[in-house]
Amino acid sequence: MVTVALDAMGGDRGLEVNVDGAAMLSREDTDIHVVLVGDVSRISERLEAIAYDPQRLTLVAAQGCVAMDERPGEALERMPECSIARAAELVATGQAQALVSAGHTGATILAASRRFGRLPGIRRAALAAVYPTERRHGPHKDPFALMLDVGATLDATAADLVSFAVMGSAYSSIISSIEAPRVALLSNGTEANKGTATIVEAHRRLLEGPLNFEGNIEGLDIPRGTVDVVVCEGFLGNVVLKMLEGVSEVVRDVARQASGRKLQWRVGLAMLGGGLRELRRMTDWKSYGGAPLLGLDQVVIKAHGRSEARAIRNALKVAAKAVRRDLIGRTQAGMQEIGDA
Amino acid sequence: MVTVALDAMGGDRGLEVNVDGAAMLSREDTDIHVVLVGDVSRISERLEAIAYDPQRLTLVAAQGCVAMDERPGEALERMPECSIARAAELVATGQAQALVSAGHTGATILAASRRFGRLPGIRRAALAAVYPTERRHGPHKDPFALMLDVGATLDATAADLVSFAVMGSAYSSIISSIEAPRVALLSNGTEANKGTATIVEAHRRLLEGPLNFEGNIEGLDIPRGTVDVVVCEGFLGNVVLKMLEGVSEVVRDVARQASGRKLQWRVGLAMLGGGLRELRRMTDWKSYGGAPLLGLDQVVIKAHGRSEARAIRNALKVAAKAVRRDLIGRTQAGMQEIGDA
Repeated sequence: MVTVALDAMGGDRGLEVNVDGAAMLSREDTDIHVVLVGDVSRISERLEAIAYDPQRLTLVAAQGCVAMDERPGEALERMPECSIARAAELVATGQAQALVSAGHTGATILAASRRFGRLPGIRRAALAAVYPTERRHGPHKDPFALMLDVGATLDATAADLVSFAVMGSAYSSIISSIEAPRVALLSNGTEANKGTATIVEAHRRLLEGPLNFEGNIEGLDIPRGTVDVVVCEGFLGNVVLKMLEGVSEVVRDVARQASGRKLQWRVGLAMLGGGLRELRRMTDWKSYGGAPLLGLDQVVIKAHGRSEARAIRNALKVAAKAVRRDLIGRTQAGMQEIGDA
Repeated sequence: MVTVALDAMGGDRGLEVNVDGAAMLSREDTDIHVVLVGDVSRISERLEAIAYDPQRLTLVAAQGCVAMDERPGEALERMPECSIARAAELVATGQAQALVSAGHTGATILAASRRFGRLPGIRRAALAAVYPTERRHGPHKDPFALMLDVGATLDATAADLVSFAVMGSAYSSIISSIEAPRVALLSNGTEANKGTATIVEAHRRLLEGPLNFEGNIEGLDIPRGTVDVVVCEGFLGNVVLKMLEGVSEVVRDVARQASGRKLQWRVGLAMLGGGLRELRRMTDWKSYGGAPLLGLDQVVIKAHGRSEARAIRNALKVAAKAVRRDLIGRTQAGMQEIGDA
């Protein structure tokens, strides 16, 4: 049995998708128990309207929730008992083994960083994201790769990039069942001397280390999915990830406009129905189960703010999988190995 | 009459596309004269096989050409009379008013930086790229925006970013006939305090300056085309630009694979023919006429290495337009204004 604490109030779509996602999961044959943290009367009200397994859900009260436009530091100060703080507390005190939230990213990172410890040798946590790629990954042919950091750190040192590589490799091996994930640094050229001084130094250290390090990749390789784990500084990762979201929205818009313009195009698009759905599913990484916050001594999954119930369910499953397959232990072992190298 | 010096040997496709592009332009009713710089016997041989206006083409001999995989510094040392060096010399000595090359990017930047001066107040040149966007730009509804720097500088200071904004604004106003191009900094959030210390400082200075500065944009805004000129440091711009190329290739590959998988999809794609061609044209920025190298006291256009004859012709036209509309003077005036602000 794995117990996951869910910030039931977080996300753009509010409480319902969180409760619905947890309820959906409770009806499946899993060993996952979910603690819904938030406004218990509203959560109960929603639960009355839907089907769920009461043995697999618990409710814990919290006061307030960090809104998407608030400053996380101020909000946590003002509402020490808010849903994300309470959910993190449940994990810190051993009442749950993983934290999931679709709420404010900064507040999730801050609450987790305050309540959880950092793993030995890791100076900074990193937010990782799965994103869709052309090439498939691992034995299950996952159509996505991992990229980190995508927002938790602004200026990363060479040592930070090396620890991101270790953390990302551990996560990828657990989630996609890849024995030795291919890891690369994102740079402006494939040669070892390309990029900033920080990247060149990280490259040198990773070459000496035990990871399956493939050197530098370029922007072209991101959508292609040349490697399983793309390592970069948070500022760059954030821009790149948001750009991928933008591209997928633009492609959707252009297709929609085309279908309105000509009957022939509308028919053509209809005939492509299955293919387009496949492409849409491939580019809809909101359904992939969220972004892990890595480097802390607890499992934290940040679901996309726009998550629907199915995405929340997926994030809960991913969190439980990371606990069962001992993400924390593997990351720690990875840091040990690279320290010894 | 504008005279443009063309490195006739440069580019992945070799001499023919350069000669063909110049010949194509010579047959049109323009006031552009092209100097083809390279192996004159091979150029003449090619010219004998195609139609051109001999009054609009001149040949100038050069010895050798920098190959795509060479180190630019070493190559220029070894071949001081190579095509890109000779073409730059023609411009530096006033025999031509603009330089165009589809050859080695680093060698083009190096040859230009050595032979041309930097404009007052500009510490570093920047390579700019036009890229396709959803939104149209300017009175001619151009389906592309400008991004700089995409590769000439690795670590840009706040002053560098400010000068990139001035240079990009001048180029956009000339090429897309936009009176006051909308300029933004690429960052990890729209707020003025988002991004590295360098970006925050550049933001502050640009707010005080005379440009049509719209603040920060995020990755999402790149494919949407929210602004006319996107300003960023060269490392980031390089990764982003190559990623855009990669995304467009992946979309093409996925469509090709889909058409092979099901008859229904093949028929659907065929019915979309015109729409797909439109999308392809939109994402094929190789036809947009190349990337200007800005900040020097001469007009330099770097055509894409994979340019075909039409792209070379377009690059020559863009170079002539930049000369006629006084890109250098406008950039200088822009630097003056922002210095006075």
